[in-house]
Amino acid sequence: MNVAVDQSVEWLNARARHIEAVLERMLPAEGAVPARLHQAMRYAVLGGGKRVRAALVYAAGYACAGQQIASNLSPDSTARRKHLDLALDLAASSVELVHAYSLVHDDLPCMDDDTLRRGKPTLHVKFDEATALLAGDALQPLAFDLLAQMPVDAALIVQATQVLARAAGSLGMAGGQAIDLESVGKTLSREQLQCMHVLKTGALLSASVTLGGLAAAMTPAQKHALDAYASAMGLAFQVVDDVLDVTADTAQLGKTPGKDAAANKPTYVSLMGLQGAQDFAGELHAQALEAIAPLGESGELLAGLADFIVLRNH
Amino acid sequence: MNVAVDQSVEWLNARARHIEAVLERMLPAEGAVPARLHQAMRYAVLGGGKRVRAALVYAAGYACAGQQIASNLSPDSTARRKHLDLALDLAASSVELVHAYSLVHDDLPCMDDDTLRRGKPTLHVKFDEATALLAGDALQPLAFDLLAQMPVDAALIVQATQVLARAAGSLGMAGGQAIDLESVGKTLSREQLQCMHVLKTGALLSASVTLGGLAAAMTPAQKHALDAYASAMGLAFQVVDDVLDVTADTAQLGKTPGKDAAANKPTYVSLMGLQGAQDFAGELHAQALEAIAPLGESGELLAGLADFIVLRNH
Repeated sequence: MNVAVDQSVEWLNARARHIEAVLERMLPAEGAVPARLHQAMRYAVLGGGKRVRAALVYAAGYACAGQQIASNLSPDSTARRKHLDLALDLAASSVELVHAYSLVHDDLPCMDDDTLRRGKPTLHVKFDEATALLAGDALQPLAFDLLAQMPVDAALIVQATQVLARAAGSLGMAGGQAIDLESVGKTLSREQLQCMHVLKTGALLSASVTLGGLAAAMTPAQKHALDAYASAMGLAFQVVDDVLDVTADTAQLGKTPGKDAAANKPTYVSLMGLQGAQDFAGELHAQALEAIAPLGESGELLAGLADFIVLRNH
Repeated sequence: MNVAVDQSVEWLNARARHIEAVLERMLPAEGAVPARLHQAMRYAVLGGGKRVRAALVYAAGYACAGQQIASNLSPDSTARRKHLDLALDLAASSVELVHAYSLVHDDLPCMDDDTLRRGKPTLHVKFDEATALLAGDALQPLAFDLLAQMPVDAALIVQATQVLARAAGSLGMAGGQAIDLESVGKTLSREQLQCMHVLKTGALLSASVTLGGLAAAMTPAQKHALDAYASAMGLAFQVVDDVLDVTADTAQLGKTPGKDAAANKPTYVSLMGLQGAQDFAGELHAQALEAIAPLGESGELLAGLADFIVLRNH
């Protein structure tokens, strides 16, 4: 990796520590009744993950706010910066909660039946199935509660609510999971595989970018740039995941590698070959960078994240 | 039952048919990809239930709007009425979706492991466990999406989002389920039992009343009346459910009676005896009617629902 990527990784790690502390505060306390449920929710959310979704929220928000300041579209002030930071903390928490809930339900015996996640026992193994089900069920509304607390115009909150709801729902993440279930053992076309991943992983990654923009009251031109960036990166993330599933080992991944191939699930590698999938990730990377060119220097963090997502080894 | 209750039942049945038609439109089409997931969501939501939560939304909304018109607080017009009806349809749909998702997850093998619901096979029996899990997961964000579409001030939508999120979350319905799980085989005090039911069933019933009020832009005085009505009725509903669990038969209930007693779950009947529970329901009924007295004639539908909830036999 080059120096720019190293800097992105440093920023990403610092953001991951920051969002961890924010989530600590946003989640109900461990001792609050019902304590076991709250402990399970905290176990599901805290202590791990690259926090790519949260990072996308911050990077998109700072890109929009930075450009607005640079072009004097709005005055800078300490109060404004505080509001922006809080809005981004809330939006970033909300996507991390939805992501965490989806992993908990995805790991359940009736789904992927996984026992290891981020190097730790999965929630239903550590607690029990019923508690894992309920913890996931309770994380989802908490995400909407947090969005509703953003210190921005109510109209922006309403938009953000719809963006998150659609990214999580049957035409987003949950829909992608359903297609994934049905696709085991089948050969999918590139279009079908892409449709599944756009829903399953892309929708929430893409929503993260949009929520960052909404928290920073993005302009229509900024929305245009972010939308194109988001669709390219949402897909790139999954292509790289498929590549890593065959090239990385358990220690790097924190989960069992080769599992998708073993389950006979279609992946970009099974479809395009390893080199083909790597090339495709490179193309998407270029598209993402092109999309945010109009944001100028303010898009630096987004560019760094694009580098990281495509060049990461875990 | 008396004539007033008969009229309430008639209104409730008409509302149930109305919300059924509304939900038909609000849910994704059966053929929309992923079709199996959408079929499961529709199976979970459509074709049954008393729709008490939806009825509470409409009754609360019309009570507030009616009183506003009577006291000339706001002008009546066809457009205003259309907006009110649409806002109430969306709010009523959202609580029915959350209720339906909770039943689907509650019926899963790792929870109550129920095979019969409203006289039909439960969702995981009719489809499969993974699809039931995902259908529930997808119904929840759809509820928030619908709330966000209410044709009311954005600030009211934000409030409604928080009301629904908290009613559904770990300090509401999901929290009540978690306490219920932990309480099997234990003897709870009246306070502990009440806390569990206030969360498990009361929170969403209570939220239904509040959402109806928000959809009709309730005044602070109206909010005060609705809040007191909602807490009394939220509890009364569960007390009556416990009574019916020992007095009604399968045909009336549409589910297996005596199941809670068999599972050694604490109920109001096991705690207070049958007569004690019936008396308690009567007290709560009186409290609810007193709470809405300030609403005058506009509170008629709410009063009728209180009668129905306490005097029903299924």
